[in-house]
Amino acid sequence: MSQDTGTNTLSSLGEFGLVGKILSTIRESSVSIPGIEVEAGDDAAVINLTNASLVISVDMYVEGKHFRTDWSTAIEIGRRCAAASLSDVCAMGAVPVGALLAIGMPGSTASHWASEFISGFTEEVGLAGAVVLGGDVSESEQIVISVSALGTVESGSAVTRAGAQIGDLVGICGRSGMAAAGLRVLQRGLRSPRVLVDAFRVPKIDYLAGSRAAKHSATSMIDISDGLVADLQHIARDSQVCVELDTSGFDVPQELVSAAAAFGTDPMSWILAGGDDHALVATFPASVGVAQGFTTIGKITQGTENGVTKEGTVLINGEPYTESPGFRHFT
Amino acid sequence: MSQDTGTNTLSSLGEFGLVGKILSTIRESSVSIPGIEVEAGDDAAVINLTNASLVISVDMYVEGKHFRTDWSTAIEIGRRCAAASLSDVCAMGAVPVGALLAIGMPGSTASHWASEFISGFTEEVGLAGAVVLGGDVSESEQIVISVSALGTVESGSAVTRAGAQIGDLVGICGRSGMAAAGLRVLQRGLRSPRVLVDAFRVPKIDYLAGSRAAKHSATSMIDISDGLVADLQHIARDSQVCVELDTSGFDVPQELVSAAAAFGTDPMSWILAGGDDHALVATFPASVGVAQGFTTIGKITQGTENGVTKEGTVLINGEPYTESPGFRHFT
Repeated sequence: MSQDTGTNTLSSLGEFGLVGKILSTIRESSVSIPGIEVEAGDDAAVINLTNASLVISVDMYVEGKHFRTDWSTAIEIGRRCAAASLSDVCAMGAVPVGALLAIGMPGSTASHWASEFISGFTEEVGLAGAVVLGGDVSESEQIVISVSALGTVESGSAVTRAGAQIGDLVGICGRSGMAAAGLRVLQRGLRSPRVLVDAFRVPKIDYLAGSRAAKHSATSMIDISDGLVADLQHIARDSQVCVELDTSGFDVPQELVSAAAAFGTDPMSWILAGGDDHALVATFPASVGVAQGFTTIGKITQGTENGVTKEGTVLINGEPYTESPGFRHFT
Repeated sequence: MSQDTGTNTLSSLGEFGLVGKILSTIRESSVSIPGIEVEAGDDAAVINLTNASLVISVDMYVEGKHFRTDWSTAIEIGRRCAAASLSDVCAMGAVPVGALLAIGMPGSTASHWASEFISGFTEEVGLAGAVVLGGDVSESEQIVISVSALGTVESGSAVTRAGAQIGDLVGICGRSGMAAAGLRVLQRGLRSPRVLVDAFRVPKIDYLAGSRAAKHSATSMIDISDGLVADLQHIARDSQVCVELDTSGFDVPQELVSAAAAFGTDPMSWILAGGDDHALVATFPASVGVAQGFTTIGKITQGTENGVTKEGTVLINGEPYTESPGFRHFT
């Protein structure tokens, strides 16, 4: 990618200049990916998936709503958009294979911001073992990013939210609560503890955990983006079971305990309701146990209590969760 | 889909309410699509593509830049976003199979606008023989829409921009200039001639034309979104040939002639530089002629003139095109 002076804007660079920069970044990173018949740059990309089923999802990230340019660098925002999007295909039991990126930006955006965003995005896609398959650029009032993530899974082997069985163990792979704590730190105008702020800026994803869980007989799986309880409610409802979490099973990092004490809050509220960490939660038959890299945090039950069945609910140490379970738009 | 009172906004409906409405619209329209293993609503959709290669592209549409809510209804905008996006996969020789939709909207957006947009989008995706595979909704300052379009093509058979051969015929399928004329009408504050305004509002796409061209030995193909000359320059450059158009080959509709006279302009400037019609242009060996539904408008040459080769250029009746060949962002 060519050097920017730091004073160029997208208006001075022009649409085709930016598209050219994006394509050169993508091409540098995608040399000889197997299966790519036509790479980004034509009307569409073409990829041969050889006997696997395609897993695909889309996410949108809006400046001021999902990220702030004064809280995160362009590289971090690029990495985070890629990570959060690819996490969805992992949560189906798939291996990531590609991503498409559409960005709207004001004409006044510094072109080095755009270049760095693309670099971060492409880097994270590469970490996932995937490739950027296409993109589009437009002018908009605020920065709006849309990512479509693609993965492949053996046909018939995708893991949905609907298969949890009574008696299954609930396992988590990845951190929960760290990003929420980092967000709280940034909202207070602070920049440390760094480990929490970094967790908010770029989630750490094990991109093979979903595929590993699928091969380990996972019965249901979801990625935690809105909050642990909020997202487990999807499994509870779609599988028509009760998800019972035992908070003694959680590994609570010392940084989270210290930050919670400083903020006068309970670290468990971040763990249970904080989003943006993109941990994977899956259910496994008790006979096989949780997959490698997963920690057991609960079990699937009928949730019957005094003769009343609590299907479709999440219980924490046997009690309903009464706080706000996660994040919502338009509320 | 439930009835709207017309006064609900997205803020009152909430994100999950809107997602639920979208999912119900999608499910009503996608009953028993072959190959769908997991439909929209989980972390990602899963589709079995059985031995074909995947063709995929992304586009972004921004309110005030690509569409205006006072010029087009929500249904028309939905249809246009779907049509323009799916046209890209057709231009690779593929048959459309699916689309993913991400929308950012202000919280003050009327929920019936959002519902109608989704209905129009889903309807057009259905006309293309495809299905909505997923979606995401977010809050943003202006309406921003991102569509990823998916198609399938026989492995190794995708038609790029780079294969045009000297001696090939250039064929067009679909209208050119009608949408540009309709845009001009709307810009003047008028609403008729209706046929031109409608052409701008919703492009008419033959979704099987690209696949037909590929089977008819097309050597290169592109969809005309920015303008005929602008987009043919991609074929000229990528194939390292000269594209020579003969304007006597164009079928110029009477409405275009009349409107051009009223505006004191040449209808050919709309045909050559107007975007948004999403006609397909392909090159075919002269020995087989253009595919069914295509009209011959030129040929591929070396473009040598006085010993100087004009590879990578587009000539109109033997002359370079000197006017602005199409639309650009960030300029």
